[in-house]
Amino acid sequence: MRRLRMGMIGGGPGSFIGGVHRIAAELDGEIELVAGAFSADAAKSAEAGAKYGIDASRAYPSYAAMFAAEAERSDRIDFVTIATPNHVHLPAARAALSSGFAVMSDKPMTATLAEARELVRLTATAKTAYRLTYTYTGYPLVREARRMVADGTLGVIRKVVVEYSQGWLAEPVERSGTNKQAEWRSDPRRSGEGGCIGDIGVHAFNLAEFVTGRRVQAICADLNSLVAGRVLDDDCNILMRFDNGAPGVLIASQIEIGGLNGLRLRVYGDKAALDWSQELPNKLTVNYLDGRCELRRAGGGELGADAKAATRLPMGHPEGYLEAFANLYRDFAALLRGTGTAALVPAADDGLRGMALIATAVSSSRAGGGWTPLII
Amino acid sequence: MRRLRMGMIGGGPGSFIGGVHRIAAELDGEIELVAGAFSADAAKSAEAGAKYGIDASRAYPSYAAMFAAEAERSDRIDFVTIATPNHVHLPAARAALSSGFAVMSDKPMTATLAEARELVRLTATAKTAYRLTYTYTGYPLVREARRMVADGTLGVIRKVVVEYSQGWLAEPVERSGTNKQAEWRSDPRRSGEGGCIGDIGVHAFNLAEFVTGRRVQAICADLNSLVAGRVLDDDCNILMRFDNGAPGVLIASQIEIGGLNGLRLRVYGDKAALDWSQELPNKLTVNYLDGRCELRRAGGGELGADAKAATRLPMGHPEGYLEAFANLYRDFAALLRGTGTAALVPAADDGLRGMALIATAVSSSRAGGGWTPLII
Amino acid sequence: MRRLRMGMIGGGPGSFIGGVHRIAAELDGEIELVAGAFSADAAKSAEAGAKYGIDASRAYPSYAAMFAAEAERSDRIDFVTIATPNHVHLPAARAALSSGFAVMSDKPMTATLAEARELVRLTATAKTAYRLTYTYTGYPLVREARRMVADGTLGVIRKVVVEYSQGWLAEPVERSGTNKQAEWRSDPRRSGEGGCIGDIGVHAFNLAEFVTGRRVQAICADLNSLVAGRVLDDDCNILMRFDNGAPGVLIASQIEIGGLNGLRLRVYGDKAALDWSQELPNKLTVNYLDGRCELRRAGGGELGADAKAATRLPMGHPEGYLEAFANLYRDFAALLRGTGTAALVPAADDGLRGMALIATAVSSSRAGGGWTPLII
Amino acid sequence: MRRLRMGMIGGGPGSFIGGVHRIAAELDGEIELVAGAFSADAAKSAEAGAKYGIDASRAYPSYAAMFAAEAERSDRIDFVTIATPNHVHLPAARAALSSGFAVMSDKPMTATLAEARELVRLTATAKTAYRLTYTYTGYPLVREARRMVADGTLGVIRKVVVEYSQGWLAEPVERSGTNKQAEWRSDPRRSGEGGCIGDIGVHAFNLAEFVTGRRVQAICADLNSLVAGRVLDDDCNILMRFDNGAPGVLIASQIEIGGLNGLRLRVYGDKAALDWSQELPNKLTVNYLDGRCELRRAGGGELGADAKAATRLPMGHPEGYLEAFANLYRDFAALLRGTGTAALVPAADDGLRGMALIATAVSSSRAGGGWTPLII
Repeated sequence: MRRLRMGMIGGGPGSFIGGVHRIAAELDGEIELVAGAFSADAAKSAEAGAKYGIDASRAYPSYAAMFAAEAERSDRIDFVTIATPNHVHLPAARAALSSGFAVMSDKPMTATLAEARELVRLTATAKTAYRLTYTYTGYPLVREARRMVADGTLGVIRKVVVEYSQGWLAEPVERSGTNKQAEWRSDPRRSGEGGCIGDIGVHAFNLAEFVTGRRVQAICADLNSLVAGRVLDDDCNILMRFDNGAPGVLIASQIEIGGLNGLRLRVYGDKAALDWSQELPNKLTVNYLDGRCELRRAGGGELGADAKAATRLPMGHPEGYLEAFANLYRDFAALLRGTGTAALVPAADDGLRGMALIATAVSSSRAGGGWTPLII
Repeated sequence: MRRLRMGMIGGGPGSFIGGVHRIAAELDGEIELVAGAFSADAAKSAEAGAKYGIDASRAYPSYAAMFAAEAERSDRIDFVTIATPNHVHLPAARAALSSGFAVMSDKPMTATLAEARELVRLTATAKTAYRLTYTYTGYPLVREARRMVADGTLGVIRKVVVEYSQGWLAEPVERSGTNKQAEWRSDPRRSGEGGCIGDIGVHAFNLAEFVTGRRVQAICADLNSLVAGRVLDDDCNILMRFDNGAPGVLIASQIEIGGLNGLRLRVYGDKAALDWSQELPNKLTVNYLDGRCELRRAGGGELGADAKAATRLPMGHPEGYLEAFANLYRDFAALLRGTGTAALVPAADDGLRGMALIATAVSSSRAGGGWTPLII
Repeated sequence: MRRLRMGMIGGGPGSFIGGVHRIAAELDGEIELVAGAFSADAAKSAEAGAKYGIDASRAYPSYAAMFAAEAERSDRIDFVTIATPNHVHLPAARAALSSGFAVMSDKPMTATLAEARELVRLTATAKTAYRLTYTYTGYPLVREARRMVADGTLGVIRKVVVEYSQGWLAEPVERSGTNKQAEWRSDPRRSGEGGCIGDIGVHAFNLAEFVTGRRVQAICADLNSLVAGRVLDDDCNILMRFDNGAPGVLIASQIEIGGLNGLRLRVYGDKAALDWSQELPNKLTVNYLDGRCELRRAGGGELGADAKAATRLPMGHPEGYLEAFANLYRDFAALLRGTGTAALVPAADDGLRGMALIATAVSSSRAGGGWTPLII
Repeated sequence: MRRLRMGMIGGGPGSFIGGVHRIAAELDGEIELVAGAFSADAAKSAEAGAKYGIDASRAYPSYAAMFAAEAERSDRIDFVTIATPNHVHLPAARAALSSGFAVMSDKPMTATLAEARELVRLTATAKTAYRLTYTYTGYPLVREARRMVADGTLGVIRKVVVEYSQGWLAEPVERSGTNKQAEWRSDPRRSGEGGCIGDIGVHAFNLAEFVTGRRVQAICADLNSLVAGRVLDDDCNILMRFDNGAPGVLIASQIEIGGLNGLRLRVYGDKAALDWSQELPNKLTVNYLDGRCELRRAGGGELGADAKAATRLPMGHPEGYLEAFANLYRDFAALLRGTGTAALVPAADDGLRGMALIATAVSSSRAGGGWTPLII
């Protein structure tokens, strides 16, 4: 079985997520990175290509050049990964899809909700696949959580609390001149209108919907820019209302000192409740109405098929972020090969909902709070 | 030094908190329970008196009877503890203060905001002390947290997240006929207009203000009654705005299955952040802007005077809820003896603010969310 | 029901454990401290008496004086608590028992094994009760653990690991001139031949036997004095063999920096395993052969009667060391009143076994390791 | 920079560790698996080769065939990974080294101590590199721990406690007919004379020596076969003496129900102490003599160069077992390229010491305990 060939857009020098995509995609031996338009600067693109060990001729100065050249090759790439700042997501995906290349895009889907709507339309008629990397859906116990809700173990969903705590923007590091990540993520021209809400809030939102299978209908948002001089929000506190009436809370922040990458989801049903945290990603706490409290662990015999398929190692051997990420790519590879459906990998509609969250949160917050239906 | 003499109002058969007040008050050997109007039913009051080991003649059928009789004794009680359902708080406190007996009242202050305003006026002119038992302010590391904020260790307070998670009302146990606690706490005539918000939300609110020294100015509340047929709220999600502009989130629930008595406070400053949880009450996590993460533990040499004074045992010997509660009584005893100020024990104004929270939360939630200034 | 009257031997100025005994004994309102021979120095005894709030006439200069005077009173003490350094345990207990006063003694039973044998003989013929405070047997979940083993939930016991980690003797604080606790505990004339093994090793040993119901038959010990100049051991590492052939490990240390009072017990059966730690005393982790992992919590409905009886508060309200200690006193009070058997409170035989551990460990270690049958 | 070419010996159908070596080796894009003698059964070797996606012509029926064929190729393999049962380790390594291929071997080094001595001699004169995969040395915070000891942060090492807890052999699964892992690991002909001690005890032992930089001089061992009918040990409890006189304890077990892969190391110095556990591999707890307790986390700015180099992701993105394993391969690749020294990757002498542990533990335990100098 040949390895699928991946091209990358973005991920050049200074990128964090580019290297992550490379490792995650290649981890299971089903995909290899063979080409890339890593930077709009040809020299930097070549530099990244060399670092990734790809053939120099396949490090392109633009995605347009990549699509043109690759289309001519017999060993052409099978798909592209988009690992750029947000404002490039739409044009890159549009070009890829129109050239017949499948797309795995980083999140959020686009820079604006309007762009997302356009991309949803494009994917609806595209002849090839589009998926996006809400990474956290790849954790085995997140998938187990989803299954338990779907199985009715929790009963009716009554409440959801989801948090994403970071502290790396507690100071104005975007003005330090040495932090490219902070620069583009706090710049509306490249990030879109969401700062924290767009960078990590959408992850939390997607996680809540992914696990519960419920859709958020309305929110009441308080977005703040707590570091002086910052244009975009760096702190988000949101009340949510799900489509079955259940309340929810979403807290995301990039100024919570001590918050590393603290994603946590709690789902309360009328029969049981779940608690999962990325800090201990291989555990899932389940509390039942009768008082029982149990821990489920990656690799456990009691887990469902989705969680088992997402685990590579025996119990007690920690798998982490890269392995979760790799699960998305493994499923995506199966989709491209026609051996799987990638049902658990977020698709265009999930991307659109994330953009709707951003737009609605900004709108609700600017309006001084108050319940606002999700603008979609 | 003689032990101060305590009378109790409420705390009869079926009461949880009465026994707790007795243990907490007596724990340090400075107070003894000698009298009580434990129930409006004389037989039940006598039964409770016998259980507590007090002289039969001092188990009264009403607080009025107690005040009348005790006033005549040379060994009369020094103060009363009010451990009744909320609607009795005001009349009992009013009678005590007017009879010259100091008062230690359970929370919330009263059943309604109007009552609280009246009680504030009464305490302002009373010749003796009034305090109330927001228990959690008695934990050594909560007091340490307060000190660290006051010392400037955290810098400017940027954000507060406080949670109080319970699950004991996940079913309609108030209709089981066997749960007196659930009955009165979910009954507006005895609880007032707040259910969860009045029972535990006020604790969370007080904790946030106690530690940060900041006052909440406005809130945006979503109160829910998630169990069918329940009149009062059993779930509260509130966005807060502090007087320095800092955002906050308060989550309290009694339907979160698996939530035992999960009180947790996180305070984020621009220099450091604190994380305290009742589950491990003898630890306080402190994260600094430079990445350092330290644990402070009860008994540690680095702690301030307040925390040290609130600890009885060497490091590693767990102290819990009763000891925290006892710290309030110990401080209160010092106040009555004139050897201390009880500066850390919540007073009438703190009680009023809790009632304001309830009223404002109910109002904001009914109005469909939206920012509402604290009605006080 | 009148409160039982307690006299105390030891517990004078500078004592840690005296105040603990006072609080624990009085916590449930069944006992009150009314007399004491708190120090061999009459002035100090009086000082302590005043601090404890007892009548000045009942603060005696010696236990002999106390027994003589109390025997004449109609409100004489019902029992004594012995809270002295170890070398006083035997003579004080002997005098009490021969005077007809029941005894609650601190551990270890005596200073030497020979003394313990004598005390066992005395208790066998005494007309009143003798018990000793291996405090940790009082924790609700320790009692639950014992019950689960007795019920067969664990199946055959295969292995036991028990640890007691402290760090307060990591420096030669006994030579600082300001640490009375360290002074007598590291002084063979007052402590006996065991340092760490006698102070905390016996607690760990008792806990293992208490929970498993099995008896240690032989050990292989390595005792160390790791701080220069210290005479007694401050670190103990012991391999154990139980009477059913199961292996065990006991680790106790007072030089493990960061060890606060880290008592932890793990018991492995062929059907299930238990893990309990004083750091989170209200939880018990149970792992089953089929992979299930559950948490039991104080107050939970699934707990047995012993654990329920040992819990005062609803789930999630932390109870700690003082409450565990108080459980021993409450059971002891019931024994004295004839309303209970105090079956869970360690008795003379348990005390003797602790002394046997000390003697055997010292012997095994001096002999250069090797398996040594328990000298008893 | 071309990817180094790896051949694998072992790792065929049913192997757990073969796939792990593949992922770990390839994770950083510096190595690719291109050949293998995956099984002594040619069909199975071909099957594995196909699964790994290598060219059919390079799936060999024996390592001898592989070495012969690869030596003729211009794109020959650069090194081999040995991922077989223990009894094949020596002959495979011998053949590789004599053919000029570098070796990365799984642990333990060989099946017997005599074989290990021979292999040490072979590596001493070999023209190429030999290393072995004590995986846990690859964790960033294990490397940080080592650095902190080397830097003197802990002061003099006083005590070491290392544990490795598993429960997967709590039943006689080796006789189920479906567990190849259990079969060979409990079979002396393939495992050697150590069961648990050889499978995981050596990991714990190596970790203790790796971090402390101290060497164990003598041990006192108690090995047990707790499951009826099992020939090799499944439970090991060992007292240790380090070369500076410090005591230590090593506990390893495969019958501890609930033990997943619970590796934990505690190192106590006279200035500070460390606590690391694989369950939370990205954290390291450091306790200081003055009472301070701090957490160090992967990615933290305070970490030393070794830990930083071993981390790929920002703080809070969990890295796990595969990433730790990959760190060994990355260092090994640098060694082969001449751009690094692989100083942190265990070498022949470390392998020999592990075999000495096994031999000495078996000997000490059979002799009935007692201190036994390490037979080396």
